[in-house]
Amino acid sequence: MPDLALYELAAADPDVRFSPHCWKTRMALAHKGLQARGIPWRFTEKEALGPSGQGLVPVLVHDGAWVHDSWRIALHLERHFPERPSLFGAEAAVPLAEFVNRWADSALMPLLGRLAVPYVHQGVHAQDRAYFRSTREQRFGVALETLAAERDGYLAALQPALQPLRLLLAGRDFIAGARPAYADYCVFGQFVWAHCTCPLVLLEESDPVHAWRERLFDAFGGLARAAPTMAH
Amino acid sequence: MPDLALYELAAADPDVRFSPHCWKTRMALAHKGLQARGIPWRFTEKEALGPSGQGLVPVLVHDGAWVHDSWRIALHLERHFPERPSLFGAEAAVPLAEFVNRWADSALMPLLGRLAVPYVHQGVHAQDRAYFRSTREQRFGVALETLAAERDGYLAALQPALQPLRLLLAGRDFIAGARPAYADYCVFGQFVWAHCTCPLVLLEESDPVHAWRERLFDAFGGLARAAPTMAH
Repeated sequence: MPDLALYELAAADPDVRFSPHCWKTRMALAHKGLQARGIPWRFTEKEALGPSGQGLVPVLVHDGAWVHDSWRIALHLERHFPERPSLFGAEAAVPLAEFVNRWADSALMPLLGRLAVPYVHQGVHAQDRAYFRSTREQRFGVALETLAAERDGYLAALQPALQPLRLLLAGRDFIAGARPAYADYCVFGQFVWAHCTCPLVLLEESDPVHAWRERLFDAFGGLARAAPTMAH
Repeated sequence: MPDLALYELAAADPDVRFSPHCWKTRMALAHKGLQARGIPWRFTEKEALGPSGQGLVPVLVHDGAWVHDSWRIALHLERHFPERPSLFGAEAAVPLAEFVNRWADSALMPLLGRLAVPYVHQGVHAQDRAYFRSTREQRFGVALETLAAERDGYLAALQPALQPLRLLLAGRDFIAGARPAYADYCVFGQFVWAHCTCPLVLLEESDPVHAWRERLFDAFGGLARAAPTMAH
């Protein structure tokens, strides 16, 4: 077996691993049937990631080689473990999976972030709290308390933002087709992030997106469903 | 050669074929190197499409068989002409191309529609004008004149809506990768629609989406670039 270690964003409780991008990688590793040691990492521990050349997780260390960025890690895993289940299914699907990833990050993440961030602030390690507040208030341009006060508007805006996914999943079990693949994990990672950090009900039970999310919570022996969450 | 006819939405000028969905099919046929007779069709000529079982175009008639809906037509062409250039590249790419199509129709089309519809109303055939106004005012919930007055807001909203595409195309020439495929035509069809119907500048020249759109205007000998447009 290869030696794999994954630096993952952790909350005050080190067992709470809540980053959407880390969950993309965690699901990708499970898809490939690979085991990686998860190393809890906090926002302010930039120096621990020195060899990766930047200060964000996930960072994978594979037999001593450092690979950062969840998308690059997925390509790395696909290239280095071609004999294991494919994350993309075919070369022609890679650019389209990247589109799904870009969509998740630019159409969903800003809304889910506005919803989750006030809760996350309460759950991060004390050493991260000031960093977290200042970077997120800069990103969103308002105080965390304002985001919390505007919650209902973001919840309402989430529903039309999910429409492409909803229409697709009305006719398919997974984004990638009959079985899940990396495109699914790109979107699902965002929902695990929300699940781990906040108590909000994001989806109605009649929504095809809800059924899809349940299927992915069940995947790999219920890996994501068993994830420890912040106390609400 | 197979006998192919395509019912296409036409303006008052029958050479102006402006439907986004018809353009998806027109590009798909060109991709496959297939010739189809284009049959101009107006919104109110529902009975002409009788054998298709519904009243919208595109409708393809292939050796006497009627196939409706641009997505179903793409799958039909791929299945019946497997020896010609693939619209998807691989079976695994089909669900993801469908996601791109769903995204184009639910994230872009409502905005482009609000921008284009006041112009389209002036360009459609006289027999279609009342139908067009009533169906579009019902769809958008406001008068066409209100849409025209709110134009600047829709133009502004278009820019963040394009963000997933913009991020993808910053690193790739086409949505499908190094060469265009059906996922590209799903999005490009929307831009040809806007191009054929309204004089608005939708994209800045520095936008990677602009360069991508130019590449597709050039594709197949400049097929879309040569398309007649409504008089502005």
